[in-house]
Amino acid sequence: MNTILQVGLIGAGRMGQVHASTIVHRVATAQLVAVSDLVPGAAQALAAKFHVPNVAADYGTIITDPGLDAVLICTPTDTHAEIVRAAAQAGKHIFCEKPIALNLKDADAALRVVNQAGVKFQLGFNRRFDANYARVRQAVTSGEIGTPQLLHIISRDPAPPSIPYIQSSGGIFLDMAIHDWDMARFLIGSEIEEVYVQGGVMIDPAIGEAGDLDTHVTLFRFANGVVGTIDNSRQAVYGYDQRVEILGSRGAIQTEHNFPNNTVLSTADAIRRDLPLTFFMQRYTDAFAAEIEAFVEAVVTGGPVPVGGHDGRMALIAGLAAKKSYLERRPVKISEID
Amino acid sequence: MNTILQVGLIGAGRMGQVHASTIVHRVATAQLVAVSDLVPGAAQALAAKFHVPNVAADYGTIITDPGLDAVLICTPTDTHAEIVRAAAQAGKHIFCEKPIALNLKDADAALRVVNQAGVKFQLGFNRRFDANYARVRQAVTSGEIGTPQLLHIISRDPAPPSIPYIQSSGGIFLDMAIHDWDMARFLIGSEIEEVYVQGGVMIDPAIGEAGDLDTHVTLFRFANGVVGTIDNSRQAVYGYDQRVEILGSRGAIQTEHNFPNNTVLSTADAIRRDLPLTFFMQRYTDAFAAEIEAFVEAVVTGGPVPVGGHDGRMALIAGLAAKKSYLERRPVKISEID
Amino acid sequence: MNTILQVGLIGAGRMGQVHASTIVHRVATAQLVAVSDLVPGAAQALAAKFHVPNVAADYGTIITDPGLDAVLICTPTDTHAEIVRAAAQAGKHIFCEKPIALNLKDADAALRVVNQAGVKFQLGFNRRFDANYARVRQAVTSGEIGTPQLLHIISRDPAPPSIPYIQSSGGIFLDMAIHDWDMARFLIGSEIEEVYVQGGVMIDPAIGEAGDLDTHVTLFRFANGVVGTIDNSRQAVYGYDQRVEILGSRGAIQTEHNFPNNTVLSTADAIRRDLPLTFFMQRYTDAFAAEIEAFVEAVVTGGPVPVGGHDGRMALIAGLAAKKSYLERRPVKISEID
Amino acid sequence: MNTILQVGLIGAGRMGQVHASTIVHRVATAQLVAVSDLVPGAAQALAAKFHVPNVAADYGTIITDPGLDAVLICTPTDTHAEIVRAAAQAGKHIFCEKPIALNLKDADAALRVVNQAGVKFQLGFNRRFDANYARVRQAVTSGEIGTPQLLHIISRDPAPPSIPYIQSSGGIFLDMAIHDWDMARFLIGSEIEEVYVQGGVMIDPAIGEAGDLDTHVTLFRFANGVVGTIDNSRQAVYGYDQRVEILGSRGAIQTEHNFPNNTVLSTADAIRRDLPLTFFMQRYTDAFAAEIEAFVEAVVTGGPVPVGGHDGRMALIAGLAAKKSYLERRPVKISEID
Repeated sequence: MNTILQVGLIGAGRMGQVHASTIVHRVATAQLVAVSDLVPGAAQALAAKFHVPNVAADYGTIITDPGLDAVLICTPTDTHAEIVRAAAQAGKHIFCEKPIALNLKDADAALRVVNQAGVKFQLGFNRRFDANYARVRQAVTSGEIGTPQLLHIISRDPAPPSIPYIQSSGGIFLDMAIHDWDMARFLIGSEIEEVYVQGGVMIDPAIGEAGDLDTHVTLFRFANGVVGTIDNSRQAVYGYDQRVEILGSRGAIQTEHNFPNNTVLSTADAIRRDLPLTFFMQRYTDAFAAEIEAFVEAVVTGGPVPVGGHDGRMALIAGLAAKKSYLERRPVKISEID
Repeated sequence: MNTILQVGLIGAGRMGQVHASTIVHRVATAQLVAVSDLVPGAAQALAAKFHVPNVAADYGTIITDPGLDAVLICTPTDTHAEIVRAAAQAGKHIFCEKPIALNLKDADAALRVVNQAGVKFQLGFNRRFDANYARVRQAVTSGEIGTPQLLHIISRDPAPPSIPYIQSSGGIFLDMAIHDWDMARFLIGSEIEEVYVQGGVMIDPAIGEAGDLDTHVTLFRFANGVVGTIDNSRQAVYGYDQRVEILGSRGAIQTEHNFPNNTVLSTADAIRRDLPLTFFMQRYTDAFAAEIEAFVEAVVTGGPVPVGGHDGRMALIAGLAAKKSYLERRPVKISEID
Repeated sequence: MNTILQVGLIGAGRMGQVHASTIVHRVATAQLVAVSDLVPGAAQALAAKFHVPNVAADYGTIITDPGLDAVLICTPTDTHAEIVRAAAQAGKHIFCEKPIALNLKDADAALRVVNQAGVKFQLGFNRRFDANYARVRQAVTSGEIGTPQLLHIISRDPAPPSIPYIQSSGGIFLDMAIHDWDMARFLIGSEIEEVYVQGGVMIDPAIGEAGDLDTHVTLFRFANGVVGTIDNSRQAVYGYDQRVEILGSRGAIQTEHNFPNNTVLSTADAIRRDLPLTFFMQRYTDAFAAEIEAFVEAVVTGGPVPVGGHDGRMALIAGLAAKKSYLERRPVKISEID
Repeated sequence: MNTILQVGLIGAGRMGQVHASTIVHRVATAQLVAVSDLVPGAAQALAAKFHVPNVAADYGTIITDPGLDAVLICTPTDTHAEIVRAAAQAGKHIFCEKPIALNLKDADAALRVVNQAGVKFQLGFNRRFDANYARVRQAVTSGEIGTPQLLHIISRDPAPPSIPYIQSSGGIFLDMAIHDWDMARFLIGSEIEEVYVQGGVMIDPAIGEAGDLDTHVTLFRFANGVVGTIDNSRQAVYGYDQRVEILGSRGAIQTEHNFPNNTVLSTADAIRRDLPLTFFMQRYTDAFAAEIEAFVEAVVTGGPVPVGGHDGRMALIAGLAAKKSYLERRPVKISEID
């Protein structure tokens, strides 16, 4: 093991660039030394921008590089499971973007190999590392708000992704809401038991034609009796809206927007603030650094990762249950998914 | 018709006192001249406090008083329908507290008599007259937020009512949530089509033993496709929590707490505000005055009441559907209620 | 003494109308039965609007009316002292708009007559009755913020008054800031010792030509060592801005705007709130009712008025000192004013 | 010139550590390669913590190191001028903590040498690089708030520094308020003409015995007629309070606290937020990185520094004028200082 963790990046797309920038600018304990991408030129471009010495087309080159301690998997979702298996078999520690896979079988197969290999496996649920959510979780665990009763999660994007992205990513339930299922489990500390979805195509018919929906509210129940909702929209015109609130027996806690500045402008028209931080790269800058630092620490110290395979699996199951609920227009129990 | 509307009050309990205080202190266009209550001493006490000249034990005395233009019905819910019928047949204009009745048959029977008598009938959905909700509705009708997509209503009481009240009032779905069903219809301007409830007894087992629940989130769909939630709790320890928010295609609007003052106190512990306005009497003081003024104006001018029998009926149906959803643990269509 | 205080109003201008509306709509313990105004038609118009039975051109008719218990003086400032003297000599209790007079000699002469007559005399410092300022004062007296150290008062009008009003009212230091000198004394509970003004004509040259200024910040020191500022502008384009904050040894307290509603609108441009309550009639509606109720109670019970002649005198002296500081461009001690 | 700027740090105290951490963790364009401090062990400790290869006791070793492009001066204030002169004569670009000196003569002498040497000289007015203040400045330059009229700066520390620090640093007017004089000039874009101080020892008598005060409000006027205040306290028990507001002819802009998280906690006691960011290291983390990046860019590109010798000089003069005003208890013109 190197003192400064030597990391290879697989996938030089949007999330690959986010993590490359994070490691180079914000994480002193890791060094990005290799990158691969199937798209010609993509790895080269990222390498040039972030001074990464080694470039490859094939992820195989990365996972077999003896100089590397760990890999970051930022490829399209439908390739995650295969690369996880290969990297684990090659003995590399793994940080993988969410979700693990688009179905439970593939996810479980990948996690089995990870377990057998004994490598660290952390999933990219960056929001757990955000100061707002950490404070909300603390209010639950410290007893400040007593026993949790109701949870509301609002998670809205500023604009829909491309149609090809929607088609390959798993759609609103597996790609977008996956963060919210994990957040629900993280904040309440209990497993989701049943979900019921109301939603539809309210923003762009092309999303419907691509087999997905763009707006929904899902009502769900945890094993411990807490009732929750997730509100997802692919387009909140005022920006990236990331809020939660919990009602408990002794109080409530809620989060507000994160803004680029804390100024209030008063004119003859209104009392106004600038729009919230634009999108996830701005909103979760600190959280991205913190999750990579936590991964590095787990690898270096041999301690547990803060968010692992089981967490990825449970969020995936919730997403699959929601999808089923939407398609069959009925409440679906988590136990129906296998 | 008198220039200053002569009003009789039937029921000198909590809501009777709220309306008596409102008319005496805030409504210059009406005069409270008679009050009745079956409970010995209740009408007398209210009359003494608010200088009401005439007192009766029986509501029959009120509705047959030729000096009265209108009656306010503030008796227990299960007597509303009978008194509405009697008052209408006696030719009195009627302001009736919600809900009209605890079942659709009684409500419809009462509304039929009202229609035949041709008297004004207004239901006590005071929140429509609140400045926050009026502003939210304006954001919808003006197009400021574009086409509405998602609605969230939070409506939490500071503490549960007495068990006898829970038993006679219709419980959480017909007594408490009835305001929220009406608010949903008022804000979105469409009818509710299907409801699904998750909730339970989270605050006081005695409420469960009385056949009710104390906490729920209901997910519902409007005819125009908007998806909504209602979050009700019988006990938010920080006080009376009354908020809504709507996401639309061109923006979002949300309401915040109403506070007794707008001061912020900063100490070595926290940056804090005093608790929100305690309960509905404080929170909706202005709305209570405005709804009575609107009723008086409708009676005096012969114009339409702003909230009438149909509104009461539709909120009742939604409440009955929610109750059925909770008991049968499944989504219930509004069309199932008859 | 009548059970319901019988009140006569002298002056049917803007403040006269505010108080007439307040008594008619909000104060159950007083009745407005007479009004006078020198301007032909003004008293009649007010009487018609608020159902006042008796109308006179001359204030003499009001102060000699044996049916009246008290008078409200709402005439131009330069007539206050004369009418106060006359009303006191006639044995009427007096509620007088601020300031008592435009110079200390007249004010003192009027207050002497009041004292000799033994009538109640309350000055219209309505802001003392506002919930925000009352809460700030409570934070001082309760010790919540420890020993006060620094005070800031911001008091800005939405638009300048007419030039004739500026010329007759006493100008920014005696008419507008008079409320702020009183607020300073009220909140800190100590007397002002020295003032220094920086300001000028920043809004409208016509105000300068009329011998006044339109914008200033005054720095001052209390006898107990607290340092304070008053920030006055005749034109804050976003509306009526009324804020204070105090830093103390154990904390700080500050007030925020009062808004017509508590909604937040989010669009592609900004996160915004509607403008604060427009002007003093809207902003201090409750305070106007509370000050009249307090006056009525003092008269009826024989108890002390909450804000009296001494308060009016000290605010006047501070205003005169500020005027002198501005003219002589130097710090002025309160003891220089006589 | 090296591609990655090679930087030496002179002074390993509190500010030295802030800048070391900033360069190591946040600034990719500079490298910290040497550190000196007269206090035995101080430079070594910092070097160990931040992996700085070269350590010296004497600043002479730093300024004569041919491998260094620039130096950061973070020594006690009374040594700034001497080190600035020496570093400039040695041809090093200079980033110097504020203030340049404790008197105008020393400051001017140092700036003369800087000019003759033709090296870059940037002063550590980090707040100019903060997102809030940048947004306020933008509101001025863009015309959003029209012509500025009034400015208020609040700048309060959470707790007083040590008495020795107060004695050597220049005290409240030259050490603490120096940031605020610069902020005033930066935001309004005009020079200060006259200042008048009210304040005293309100927190700790020992501060008075050390010849300083701990609390003041200074009222001042700019050349362009804008009127401003600076409110300084050495101890706001709720934390580091950094706010400004400007009233202009077309609007106003104000800043609010920066918090460690954006959660709101509601309990039976209050609606509360956690305390603001603790002190300058937390509050201005991003600003410290931005000012160093700007310095590096100016050195590398040869462009102008964003805040230079003239800015440091003018802030110093304002501080000296305030000190004189406090001692002589009268308004002091900037032109009196020489």
